[in-house]
Amino acid sequence: MENQLRVLIIGGVACGPKSASRLKRLIPDADVTMIERGRLVSYGACGLPYYVEGMYPEISMVSETPVGVLRDAAFFEKAKGFKTLTRLEATRISREAKTVRVKHLDTGDERDVPYDKLVLATGSRPIQPPIPGLELAHVWYMRHPDDAESMVAEIEGQKLRRAVIIGAGYIGVEMAEALVRRGLEVTMVEIFDQIMPQFLDYDMATLAAKQLRQKGVRLVLGEKVLSVQGKEGKVASVQTDKQTIEADLVLVGVGVRPNDELAREAGLACHPRGGIVINGYCQTSDPDIYAGGDCVVNHAAYPEIKDAMFVPLGSTSNKHGRVIADHIAGVAEPFVGITGTGVCRAFDVTLGRTGLTEKQARQLYPDVETAIWAGPDLPHYVPQSKPLVIKMVACRRSRKLLGVQVVGMGDASKRLDVAAGAIFFGATVDQVGNIDLGYAPPYAPPIDPLAVTAHLLLNKLNGIARGIPPLEARRRLESGEDILLLDVRTPDEFQMMRMPYEKLVVHIPLGALRGKLDQLPRDKEIFAFCKVSMRGYEAQRILNGAGFDRVSYIEGGLVGWPFEVWTPNA
Amino acid sequence: MENQLRVLIIGGVACGPKSASRLKRLIPDADVTMIERGRLVSYGACGLPYYVEGMYPEISMVSETPVGVLRDAAFFEKAKGFKTLTRLEATRISREAKTVRVKHLDTGDERDVPYDKLVLATGSRPIQPPIPGLELAHVWYMRHPDDAESMVAEIEGQKLRRAVIIGAGYIGVEMAEALVRRGLEVTMVEIFDQIMPQFLDYDMATLAAKQLRQKGVRLVLGEKVLSVQGKEGKVASVQTDKQTIEADLVLVGVGVRPNDELAREAGLACHPRGGIVINGYCQTSDPDIYAGGDCVVNHAAYPEIKDAMFVPLGSTSNKHGRVIADHIAGVAEPFVGITGTGVCRAFDVTLGRTGLTEKQARQLYPDVETAIWAGPDLPHYVPQSKPLVIKMVACRRSRKLLGVQVVGMGDASKRLDVAAGAIFFGATVDQVGNIDLGYAPPYAPPIDPLAVTAHLLLNKLNGIARGIPPLEARRRLESGEDILLLDVRTPDEFQMMRMPYEKLVVHIPLGALRGKLDQLPRDKEIFAFCKVSMRGYEAQRILNGAGFDRVSYIEGGLVGWPFEVWTPNA
Repeated sequence: MENQLRVLIIGGVACGPKSASRLKRLIPDADVTMIERGRLVSYGACGLPYYVEGMYPEISMVSETPVGVLRDAAFFEKAKGFKTLTRLEATRISREAKTVRVKHLDTGDERDVPYDKLVLATGSRPIQPPIPGLELAHVWYMRHPDDAESMVAEIEGQKLRRAVIIGAGYIGVEMAEALVRRGLEVTMVEIFDQIMPQFLDYDMATLAAKQLRQKGVRLVLGEKVLSVQGKEGKVASVQTDKQTIEADLVLVGVGVRPNDELAREAGLACHPRGGIVINGYCQTSDPDIYAGGDCVVNHAAYPEIKDAMFVPLGSTSNKHGRVIADHIAGVAEPFVGITGTGVCRAFDVTLGRTGLTEKQARQLYPDVETAIWAGPDLPHYVPQSKPLVIKMVACRRSRKLLGVQVVGMGDASKRLDVAAGAIFFGATVDQVGNIDLGYAPPYAPPIDPLAVTAHLLLNKLNGIARGIPPLEARRRLESGEDILLLDVRTPDEFQMMRMPYEKLVVHIPLGALRGKLDQLPRDKEIFAFCKVSMRGYEAQRILNGAGFDRVSYIEGGLVGWPFEVWTPNA
Repeated sequence: MENQLRVLIIGGVACGPKSASRLKRLIPDADVTMIERGRLVSYGACGLPYYVEGMYPEISMVSETPVGVLRDAAFFEKAKGFKTLTRLEATRISREAKTVRVKHLDTGDERDVPYDKLVLATGSRPIQPPIPGLELAHVWYMRHPDDAESMVAEIEGQKLRRAVIIGAGYIGVEMAEALVRRGLEVTMVEIFDQIMPQFLDYDMATLAAKQLRQKGVRLVLGEKVLSVQGKEGKVASVQTDKQTIEADLVLVGVGVRPNDELAREAGLACHPRGGIVINGYCQTSDPDIYAGGDCVVNHAAYPEIKDAMFVPLGSTSNKHGRVIADHIAGVAEPFVGITGTGVCRAFDVTLGRTGLTEKQARQLYPDVETAIWAGPDLPHYVPQSKPLVIKMVACRRSRKLLGVQVVGMGDASKRLDVAAGAIFFGATVDQVGNIDLGYAPPYAPPIDPLAVTAHLLLNKLNGIARGIPPLEARRRLESGEDILLLDVRTPDEFQMMRMPYEKLVVHIPLGALRGKLDQLPRDKEIFAFCKVSMRGYEAQRILNGAGFDRVSYIEGGLVGWPFEVWTPNA
């Protein structure tokens, strides 16, 4: 056809196939071509750690439809109606001529492909840190199905038994679980003093780290990897600035970098720290060139956050793909942005974040308030009930919800997604406490944990609750201040588990507190606590009512305490 | 104290203790008294079916704190600081004198109790339908721990084996599961032609009913119970307008009615259909008298819904309790209302609703659009992946999300709560598709089912997708219209399960469709479908592109088909 719209899509993993498929649904007679450097297209890279773990038997499943059809060039041609060309690399965009120079990676042939609309879905690549030895055999990154497949083959074939993971981000944590489940000894080395430093605050990360250690992952935090040493061309050990760790394999997971070079060389606007700049319709600075997925920087859905964010996720890539197709087809629905939501499983614990961490929020707002809640995710009489810790971050003046973090064995993912919605819609903390969430014992207690956390934060904003975050409590306890630790749990609970700093502890069960006020000194500061600190908060109010002014409760209690606790008679 | 604020709270189950406890935290020196007719206070009535099921061993657990302390008068006095008086019935409010006449149900003593602020938390009671025989032994309602305890004792002691449940609402469905799990034969009789008639649309209810039947519950829909027959004073059978059903026990679950008589007699505004009228601070028409919990009518969180709603739930009761205490203490946070969210487990299936059903929406809006999506809740390579069906209801003009229903074995509760938040915040369907929900394979596919449903609905609103709801498809197929049913699944799938109306079916796998267009007649209307109808939708677009105009796809495909399907060679 003479007037056929020619759309060329560079990149075939997530945003590329999504935009191509939708475009063919919207404009059936468009001439859509997708090119990809690799052999495979449309694979679920996020599923790779679960292949290593052994969750599913064939690596090809990440490239198949739910009914087992391989998503290859033939599939896209037949089922979706667009052309897919693999092993083709785009080397140069000529914006004036509206052509892209492409090179076949096997034959070396080059040619110019014309376009009316161009879509850059070039993705990202793993950061290769400047560590000597990463060229050795048995060093892996985890981005492509080949990575997962070769790692499993080598682990099995070569009996690799000791793994060192460099970087404790998403991929690091997911791979730590995968490799432990596969029977390896796993050490994770992170240059920061916490896991997931870009993702969770120190307190929540430290809580999550407790769980990883319990599952046998050796965490080496605050150490820098200097080199990877080899023997006969293969990994033998990892040298940090403090120790040598023997290793049969190394996984590098220190983040990814957007593939924005093609765009940069074509003069398209890019972020100084990397990533193609796009508008709400995923248009680059050239309106005929779109970009989406891991190669772009995102805007935040809440307008207070002006900085562009590089948060590469398959969920966002698919949203971009849809927006690109819609805009080319004239069905305009702008993409307002992301809230930085992420979730990750570490054994039986879920880690999640949406919006800003406390650390990020304090860089943007002068008046940040936080609250930490710990407790069961279901009514206590439901045996499936599991613990959960939620941290909420808000702005004092506007009372807007800025961020939520979740860590726990309970249903954290549900609360995270509700919070993601609340932030997306610009909710205040007051509103979050009032959402009409579904209540039935198999799903939630009558006041949902997310609502209880909002209530605690409101109580702090309103000056009723004086919660002290665990980090702050620990800092003050460690500094040797003259503080009384008031444990208001039952005698049975007191026998089972204890807060450290035992010389500072006075144990008075909550029910006895009103009758024993004379046993408490009026000249000391008091930190009350219980298992989760609901009774700790109650104790604070009782003491306030009795004229004790310097009382706070330790937020999250013992369940939310990120550091060691101890067991009497153990 | 002379100036002590006297607060009297009538009702000790949910809203009562919540308001009393919070009030004492906010105003420690207030004189707070809670009175309750029964012996027990502060019990989790929603947990009763799970006691009958055998989920937890002691009925007292619904009256205990998570650490096993009984929530009785002594507990509330010691831990919370307010007085609790049981077996006391309030018989009259003197608004001018600001006193309440109370009568001790054991001694008959009466006296007047003065108040500055009065809280009515009188709850609701089961509706007792005018059916002869309900006074027989072995007829139960399920409202009070005594009900659950005596039912279990009689089932075990008297070897009761056949149960008839009158009413297929929340309690009916939960009790059907509980009694089946306890080993009884269960028949559920419902006067409407669907389960949960106040809660789900016919299509979603019919889908859920399939699951109940598979678990052995005998459903008798569209029949009216005329009487319960007894033998030696005990239940022997249930007579409907069509049949006699033998029964050893009867559970009546036809709804509850607000206990608003005390308020009515005191001249406080009440809704004509029952329920005390309150403002956003839970004040009745007398500003010194508050009311909350099951005895009031609620406002909807979305202002379009003007009608007061009677939706008695423990979650709302607790919200009311908080608002009441806050308003008395001068920390005003109004309660904006509910979205009618409810969730219920039926064996391994979750049923949920938030906002309006299609039926309700069509009574309020002239331009309602719906979409049904079916599919797995997780990426297909995750073995824990389970099916889910979501129905979304929106207003065409405003594109506002009006309601969401969920039925399925997958994680329906998460999607329900996100939808509840979206409706609470007044979201459009476009926005719902863009929320930055957490993505990782153990928790969700890259495009969350809720977002996919929103996208389908947007495609319908934008005229791209022509989905036909299963009910409408069935009606037209049954009417004998000349329709072609285009099954675009793989040959393997086609061998495993089939749509009825086999003479109308043409099977062409999606990948072969573009090459076989000449096999399809251009003069017939075509309904395309697949397992879940994503390929059905794709087929519609392919056929539209090839000039076939009268094509739609059956929403939800075979997984979302509420009626029978068949298995070849079975």
